[in-house]
Amino acid sequence: MNSAAAFADFRRYPRVCALTAASPFADRIQVTWADGRLSPFHHQWLRDNCPCPQCVYTVTREQVLEIVDVPEDLAPGAIRLDAEGCLCVDWQDGHRSRFDPGWLRAHAYDDESRAERLAGKAKRQLWKHDLQLPVFDYLTLMEDADALLQWLLAVRDIGLTQVRGVPTEPGSLKQLAQRISFIRESNFGVLFNVQSKADADSNAYTAFNLPLHSDLPTRELQPGLQFLHCLVNDADGGESIFVDGFAIAEALRQEDPEAFTALCEIPVEFRNKDRHSDYRCLAPIIALDALGQVAEIRMANFLRGPFDTSVEQMPRLYRAYRRFIALTREPSFRLMQRLEPGQLWCFDNRRTLHARNAFDPATGARHFQGCYVDRDELLSRILVLQR
Amino acid sequence: MNSAAAFADFRRYPRVCALTAASPFADRIQVTWADGRLSPFHHQWLRDNCPCPQCVYTVTREQVLEIVDVPEDLAPGAIRLDAEGCLCVDWQDGHRSRFDPGWLRAHAYDDESRAERLAGKAKRQLWKHDLQLPVFDYLTLMEDADALLQWLLAVRDIGLTQVRGVPTEPGSLKQLAQRISFIRESNFGVLFNVQSKADADSNAYTAFNLPLHSDLPTRELQPGLQFLHCLVNDADGGESIFVDGFAIAEALRQEDPEAFTALCEIPVEFRNKDRHSDYRCLAPIIALDALGQVAEIRMANFLRGPFDTSVEQMPRLYRAYRRFIALTREPSFRLMQRLEPGQLWCFDNRRTLHARNAFDPATGARHFQGCYVDRDELLSRILVLQR
Repeated sequence: MNSAAAFADFRRYPRVCALTAASPFADRIQVTWADGRLSPFHHQWLRDNCPCPQCVYTVTREQVLEIVDVPEDLAPGAIRLDAEGCLCVDWQDGHRSRFDPGWLRAHAYDDESRAERLAGKAKRQLWKHDLQLPVFDYLTLMEDADALLQWLLAVRDIGLTQVRGVPTEPGSLKQLAQRISFIRESNFGVLFNVQSKADADSNAYTAFNLPLHSDLPTRELQPGLQFLHCLVNDADGGESIFVDGFAIAEALRQEDPEAFTALCEIPVEFRNKDRHSDYRCLAPIIALDALGQVAEIRMANFLRGPFDTSVEQMPRLYRAYRRFIALTREPSFRLMQRLEPGQLWCFDNRRTLHARNAFDPATGARHFQGCYVDRDELLSRILVLQR
Repeated sequence: MNSAAAFADFRRYPRVCALTAASPFADRIQVTWADGRLSPFHHQWLRDNCPCPQCVYTVTREQVLEIVDVPEDLAPGAIRLDAEGCLCVDWQDGHRSRFDPGWLRAHAYDDESRAERLAGKAKRQLWKHDLQLPVFDYLTLMEDADALLQWLLAVRDIGLTQVRGVPTEPGSLKQLAQRISFIRESNFGVLFNVQSKADADSNAYTAFNLPLHSDLPTRELQPGLQFLHCLVNDADGGESIFVDGFAIAEALRQEDPEAFTALCEIPVEFRNKDRHSDYRCLAPIIALDALGQVAEIRMANFLRGPFDTSVEQMPRLYRAYRRFIALTREPSFRLMQRLEPGQLWCFDNRRTLHARNAFDPATGARHFQGCYVDRDELLSRILVLQR
């Protein structure tokens, strides 16, 4: 059972192009595609990816073979394209592998194929104060898988969305979050209540203004998505403010590359402590991915520990940090809106910094509930909805 | 209220050394300690860390001041050491700061102070097959805070522990895990059942042998601690095997630095998919910390996607990957033990790779339960127990 179905593994690999030839080389097979592309595949790679039921357990679609189970110099005895257009390899040790051209094309690692895959990846959209806020309707999201997908794509690519028409019963946020997947618990609970408290263990639980920040920079992995759901909002003030941290980081990179580099390189400690916990995380404020793109912002001035870097680096770090915060205060980056009962924010906590103006608890009650869902769940859910 | 108590923040800063002098410089104050050490503190750093109740909210101990709220060139008008040995700074804008010498010494960033802090950090202990397995008693851990601390230190520094005398009722693992903190949920649930299942969505839920691996390399953050609790073990086979992934990585670094570097640099995709989820994570197999120390191993051959790197890099990656797996198979690294009912493993899932021999479900029942707790919770709990 080497047919396409056996290794479909819930993903489809359409046969976008046919194989026309396969040529043997010392350590690889090079195939030629109908569109002229040449893709080399090393013997080790082909043997490692043999989809036969001896090598991959068909129930779980997980590999049973480990590549060290075959010799490093294993080579094919014979290769051919069969009547269905698959690449067939008879190995010198007697094992036989058969590769579907759709799967092979999707995993080819010649430069052209890799560049094509990279170009096909989702593109983030940077934004400023004039973002056309993506707004979604609660009931539609709960019932319609396509609307759900559109919402999740906006969360992934824009990093800030609003949902309206949400019930205002405490706990009702849970149902919406679980449309994605399970909720990520923290030391503040599964759902947390954002209310002014006398014995606050975080400035979030006061009536103070909160400067632009990410939640839980004190943890090795900051929560991916944050939900903030308004149940009651009768108090004066307390408007929500958002900035696109990626846009600010890119602006800093343009205007002051040296400051940008300092925030990428010098780790900063974030701390959160109360009677029962003592969290500390040491990490740079800006994290880059393998391609040098800004992948994450870690920032909460009120949770930051004293800077601990060399005497020589300290002025450099302060200059960069001041400039970053100054940018978050620039009106051109800031989107401000007061959240009304039955509305919620859902945003990328590792990208979109959020703030709150001070509110006056004497003028009325204010009760928000929040929770987190990780990026892993968001991306998994998107892939399942796209199947 | 600038006294030591006001900024104790649940941590103590003993006055290990007295201040004897404070001298003004253009951009900093340099203090002299009784043991002769000199510590410079930049004006920005001192103003940023002012512990007064205007700058730090005393209830939460979180900072209210943001450094951009004061000018970049703010300088002291007057500095002095007061009768209690504190450093007092009167700023040109009228603000006054007072720094406890215990706190100041603990946060000094001259080279000597920074090296001293680094030297004081916990040291991991690498191990091989002859590890004296750290074993703990369930009831003692549930009742005795000091035993709990010793256990958690062993988990942190050795990365593999066993607990005995655990009740064998399903779910009882939860109580022990919660002695640390909340459990980290995953798409496999809060507690997961390790049993052979007909419709397995992971090879873990078959009777196959599982090669040495970390759990959930498919996630951006692999779970920190893994618990595996034996309820029933009547089936032949199924012994647990552990290796210290850090010891193997260091061995590889010694014998083949080029292979080590390949595993640090070339990202590999790990995948897990079923009807409801589709997780993918692209990351190198070995992660280093800022000091170049091995900080994490990410490895599960049965969850790995096809290697996707350039044609030039592919043979280098296969050579390194083969060598790493070959090392995990060397008996000198492998600790093997059959877990009996009422026993559990608690290990660092990002360091200690685990495996299981195949078992024969025809010979009897086998039922393990497992769960995860993150490193953040482990480290926080240790700090609280050490207060």
